[in-house]
Amino acid sequence: MADESVRDALAEFVAERDWAQFHTPENLAKSISIEAAELLECFQWGAAPDDSAVRDELADVLTYCLLLADRLGVDPDRIVLEKLEATRAKYPVEKARGSSAKYDRL
Amino acid sequence: MADESVRDALAEFVAERDWAQFHTPENLAKSISIEAAELLECFQWGAAPDDSAVRDELADVLTYCLLLADRLGVDPDRIVLEKLEATRAKYPVEKARGSSAKYDRL
Amino acid sequence: MADESVRDALAEFVAERDWAQFHTPENLAKSISIEAAELLECFQWGAAPDDSAVRDELADVLTYCLLLADRLGVDPDRIVLEKLEATRAKYPVEKARGSSAKYDRL
Amino acid sequence: MADESVRDALAEFVAERDWAQFHTPENLAKSISIEAAELLECFQWGAAPDDSAVRDELADVLTYCLLLADRLGVDPDRIVLEKLEATRAKYPVEKARGSSAKYDRL
Repeated sequence: MADESVRDALAEFVAERDWAQFHTPENLAKSISIEAAELLECFQWGAAPDDSAVRDELADVLTYCLLLADRLGVDPDRIVLEKLEATRAKYPVEKARGSSAKYDRL
Repeated sequence: MADESVRDALAEFVAERDWAQFHTPENLAKSISIEAAELLECFQWGAAPDDSAVRDELADVLTYCLLLADRLGVDPDRIVLEKLEATRAKYPVEKARGSSAKYDRL
Repeated sequence: MADESVRDALAEFVAERDWAQFHTPENLAKSISIEAAELLECFQWGAAPDDSAVRDELADVLTYCLLLADRLGVDPDRIVLEKLEATRAKYPVEKARGSSAKYDRL
Repeated sequence: MADESVRDALAEFVAERDWAQFHTPENLAKSISIEAAELLECFQWGAAPDDSAVRDELADVLTYCLLLADRLGVDPDRIVLEKLEATRAKYPVEKARGSSAKYDRL
């Protein structure tokens, strides 16, 4: 995820603007929530969403996620795959197949 | 972002469990907000955050973002880079450097 | 909470605009999250918040909470007091005093 | 909203536990977002929500809203009514009736 060129482009963008000072883990976490809600707003009243707005807001959430991953010194690909293994154990196929129930209700 | 192996691993995980039926764009957008808040909870009261919990929750947000990108048929790398160009125009270096002000307040 | 006049004013406002059709519990829950994030945005980068914006966004969150309470047929005062009793049991004074730890970590 | 007895009960609960130190406006804003997402989680996958869970989570959002109102020294009823007047101007009945469109799209 976020191959070298994307992450380098983001890091350069931030450095040019001297913005790293604002990118504390907490501020980035707040930003992820803020952008996630702007994405959710595309679906607020049940009307057909504006595809271009959805893409734009999703890009904002992803951008802040990548900035937080870099700030924490973790690789986004790696943490997703690690979490997938933990989720695999909580949702064995034979119990979870076809169900949206949470793991403690399977 | 999300090289082939990560996205394939996620797609396979979802297919094995027949979960694609729940992954409407709206449900995924809700999920991104829900996980973003669990990430924010690591910073709720100002105490030093639990690094392992932060990584775990960030992984959850990223996972749902990748699932939504796939559902929309967009490439995560690409939409982040496209958005970066739009942001570059709204925040020219000479005006935005060192400032956290929103673009309409520069 | 929300004495008769506030709740009546809200109900009348919604009825005049024929908006009740959009106020499903789910749409109201989404709206509460969306407005909560706009409130959070006042604190995004750590600068001193704009008091008037904070009040405005808090009003929006409260408005949707009252609309949801009405939609569910519950009294806001009552559910807050009921929840307070449950919280009292989870956070006995002798253990919780001066601590921001979650109940399972006291 | 939040008649004397509810607000007094909350203030007393917080004082007994010496928790006011954690209730900065920012921490309360984060808490409102966190609880709003727990409310949203009741509707995550489209299944019929658990009414008791919805009421419980709504109570949590309301609780933090009341704590923030007190911390800011504002009356919840009053700010909701003030905001309603501003919204009335943005959504005149003749234009907004029956529409979920945002005010700049009426």
